[in-house]
Amino acid sequence: MINQKEIILPAFPRGFHLITGLVMEQLPDLPGSGLLHLFIRHTSAGICINENSDPTVPDDFETSFNRLVPEGRGYYTHTTEGSDDMPAHIKSVLAGTELTIPFSDGRLLLGTWQGIYLCEFRNRGGRRRLIATILT
Amino acid sequence: MINQKEIILPAFPRGFHLITGLVMEQLPDLPGSGLLHLFIRHTSAGICINENSDPTVPDDFETSFNRLVPEGRGYYTHTTEGSDDMPAHIKSVLAGTELTIPFSDGRLLLGTWQGIYLCEFRNRGGRRRLIATILT
Amino acid sequence: MINQKEIILPAFPRGFHLITGLVMEQLPDLPGSGLLHLFIRHTSAGICINENSDPTVPDDFETSFNRLVPEGRGYYTHTTEGSDDMPAHIKSVLAGTELTIPFSDGRLLLGTWQGIYLCEFRNRGGRRRLIATILT
Repeated sequence: MINQKEIILPAFPRGFHLITGLVMEQLPDLPGSGLLHLFIRHTSAGICINENSDPTVPDDFETSFNRLVPEGRGYYTHTTEGSDDMPAHIKSVLAGTELTIPFSDGRLLLGTWQGIYLCEFRNRGGRRRLIATILT
Repeated sequence: MINQKEIILPAFPRGFHLITGLVMEQLPDLPGSGLLHLFIRHTSAGICINENSDPTVPDDFETSFNRLVPEGRGYYTHTTEGSDDMPAHIKSVLAGTELTIPFSDGRLLLGTWQGIYLCEFRNRGGRRRLIATILT
Repeated sequence: MINQKEIILPAFPRGFHLITGLVMEQLPDLPGSGLLHLFIRHTSAGICINENSDPTVPDDFETSFNRLVPEGRGYYTHTTEGSDDMPAHIKSVLAGTELTIPFSDGRLLLGTWQGIYLCEFRNRGGRRRLIATILT
């Protein structure tokens, strides 16, 4: 059984943001056991899984991703949309644009410390669209 | 329902290449709603999703991945297959070797600007094999 | 058809480790064609696919990931759990925490040189839990 639904996330500031709750409240009840697939329909944002507790973790992700893929370097040729644009494309591939998470008894089988992150790599990314697909 | 098919890509030069059309023309019609899973059977190439329009974007991906994982450094010990080989393995993990994309009404639910990239990390990678699995 | 099972991996030292055999021996026979999904329930380890033959490859992965995300830098603010902790979170996102692999005739459709890696990014990560989901 396949159930598909679009999820629209509100605009977030640049950075890594926990969205587990926001995603789940837009989904129907997860029936029995299966897989939840999430796909972000953008090329300058990502979704990934990491620590759901200490707010310094998403801050350090932002710092580290900026160091991995620095802005304003002379070697970028795709520069018409601003200095944050091409680095955002690269970061989106590094973080990933889609994710599959198992569930059972109606709950995601995330580890104790795991949550779903929206990785907003643009300074002004605006609303972001996800496609959620539930496989049971 | 599961439908599986091997896709053989022609040899591409080193770099990032849009292959959305090449992949789709080798697949049967996508029936109704579901998920398309793509898996590349190689350890020195990757597949990922990014910008489908401006040709400077794949060029900047190549430049940025070469900066992330530089060639010819003394700390590599796996060097027998050439200086592009070990960096290609690392890049393949960073870009990813498999991808799941939702579809509906027979069309991939990619965003307006999204396409599927083959990431060819070897100087002479040759033909690359993918396994496509359609879940409906 | 969906079949879900928890897999517990023994403690591995920090580094990249081939676990294809360990995973498969804890799974039931793979029936016909389908997809195997693996999800690691931790935020400081990863799973990915790469070279299954030369032991210098996982060593070079460890070296390269340490260069991509160096420890002990002053810009980390999440430091209470040790200098290996925050870099482990970043590396886990770069390597990925989940993976889907196609199978057919009861065998994973990995390429000749592909194996499944556990990426242990902590100095003392302990046992790691995976959820395996078989879709047929």
